[in-house]
Amino acid sequence: MPRSRDPLELAQRVVDGERAALPRLLSVIEQGGAPARQAGRVLHPRTGRAYTVGITGAPGAGKSTLTDRLITAAREQSEVAVLAVDPTSPFTGGALLGDRVRMMDHALDPGVFVRSMATRGHLGGLALAAPEVIRALDAAGFPLVFVETVGVGQVEVEVAGAADTTVVVLNPGAGDSVQANKAGLLEVADLLVINKADRPGADELARDLQASLQLSPRAEDAWTPPIMRTVASTGEGVTEVLDTIHQHHAYLERSGLLEQRRGRRAAEELRDILIARLEQRALDLLGSDEYRQLLAEVRERTIDPYEAADRMLLRLHD
Amino acid sequence: MPRSRDPLELAQRVVDGERAALPRLLSVIEQGGAPARQAGRVLHPRTGRAYTVGITGAPGAGKSTLTDRLITAAREQSEVAVLAVDPTSPFTGGALLGDRVRMMDHALDPGVFVRSMATRGHLGGLALAAPEVIRALDAAGFPLVFVETVGVGQVEVEVAGAADTTVVVLNPGAGDSVQANKAGLLEVADLLVINKADRPGADELARDLQASLQLSPRAEDAWTPPIMRTVASTGEGVTEVLDTIHQHHAYLERSGLLEQRRGRRAAEELRDILIARLEQRALDLLGSDEYRQLLAEVRERTIDPYEAADRMLLRLHD
Repeated sequence: MPRSRDPLELAQRVVDGERAALPRLLSVIEQGGAPARQAGRVLHPRTGRAYTVGITGAPGAGKSTLTDRLITAAREQSEVAVLAVDPTSPFTGGALLGDRVRMMDHALDPGVFVRSMATRGHLGGLALAAPEVIRALDAAGFPLVFVETVGVGQVEVEVAGAADTTVVVLNPGAGDSVQANKAGLLEVADLLVINKADRPGADELARDLQASLQLSPRAEDAWTPPIMRTVASTGEGVTEVLDTIHQHHAYLERSGLLEQRRGRRAAEELRDILIARLEQRALDLLGSDEYRQLLAEVRERTIDPYEAADRMLLRLHD
Repeated sequence: MPRSRDPLELAQRVVDGERAALPRLLSVIEQGGAPARQAGRVLHPRTGRAYTVGITGAPGAGKSTLTDRLITAAREQSEVAVLAVDPTSPFTGGALLGDRVRMMDHALDPGVFVRSMATRGHLGGLALAAPEVIRALDAAGFPLVFVETVGVGQVEVEVAGAADTTVVVLNPGAGDSVQANKAGLLEVADLLVINKADRPGADELARDLQASLQLSPRAEDAWTPPIMRTVASTGEGVTEVLDTIHQHHAYLERSGLLEQRRGRRAAEELRDILIARLEQRALDLLGSDEYRQLLAEVRERTIDPYEAADRMLLRLHD
């Protein structure tokens, strides 16, 4: 059978349970444009069942190792998909680099799907592409999706923070709680995990985090992020983290906050799509001949810049 | 005679040489909207004769005192207008605070016009309002306009850097050259002035600045910003600064760079106006009933977010 890249067909096959079509579908989505839109229309009605867990923290904190262990633990209950987001990586479609190689231990398990993703061509970049890829994993029937981000840049924190439950991974050592504060990590955290907790400084970090949490009480809900400890390399504490993720999930369901959060996220995504589209139009306008002509007239003082802008904006209708 | 606020009439009177109408005209312009646009259309054809000098640097560097001394020196040759830009000030229309009180020594001189300006209502804020105010001062017939910015925030550096000649004022003392580098001040500087040069550390600062300038050679032109020394409180070195401003002016004219710079600035202003307009449209869309309705449909999964965005964008035509 020829390997189809028809977006509608790929999306339909994934929705029908054919996992083998998933990598190609995700490539289509990552590349954006009209094919991604077509696929999205098939996928969107089939989404909303997956529970998403964001895992973020500074590079080297042990996020990949922790994610790997969480996969193993979660597999006792359900199938698992992982989206590893790395805006700096030049590779898309399954980077096999560094720590992430470890996750490939699950490569023979058909109930685990791992996808690496960098930013590529997609209008609005990673922040807009990630929700679409997550919807594809959702529509493919994975009840649990881990979204691991490599760094703690704005986009990564945004992507991880848009999950149903967000896990922030920190390490003992000078300044990690300060860094986490600066990067806005504490604000998005539902669970704080001190990984490599067998190293010196874990108690101090826990105290610092406790103090930071008390300084910034959370208006939204009564959930206070628990401060947990793991040694991901040995698996210590990992089951407890997964249990707490489930507790947080149950709490969000019970309180009605899950629907609220997802509603807010949908609004944010729609807003970001609109803004990205408008930015694209602005760039189109600024590259047009009419713009150059109007600018010349402004320079000759036959029209003023506000009038020129008004005339340009009429072009939006074209 | 009643004090008219009709923008067309005010602008015409200013263009006809009636300085008394200038403060009210500037208030109209600062408030933005349709009246500012009407005034702008009258003013714009009468602009292009004034030479603008931006004066920027950290708070406390002595910019106001230096500007005050420059006014006195420049008055021997021509009339002078000063726009003092302070995004943090809650006052518009002639703030009489702190160092700027000193400039009021010129209040009885009809050949000197001083205007303070904070950001207010104007679409796009100070960065867009300042060029309009400068055009009004230009159309009013001032051949020399000083634009003094109070802080070194992004907007202030942008406003001061948009002048024909940009003077960056620094002080001896720990870290001023580092700060100047960070704030992007060295990139916009045509003249570097070490004010309070009688204090310890002036030689060291001059060396640091020299080194910084050598590290970042300027592609655009052969002009290397001279490093000058003043004691503005006594007037020492101020005449030399004014002379160097004139030399820089002559250099820009001779090399054709003045026209190039002004052309680039006009393009940047038009771009910024366009972007501000598009942002306003985006905000209008996000506040509309149709947006809420489409968002509800996305949540119900009857349409996907990209389709919703496309439908919203059709509203741009309305």
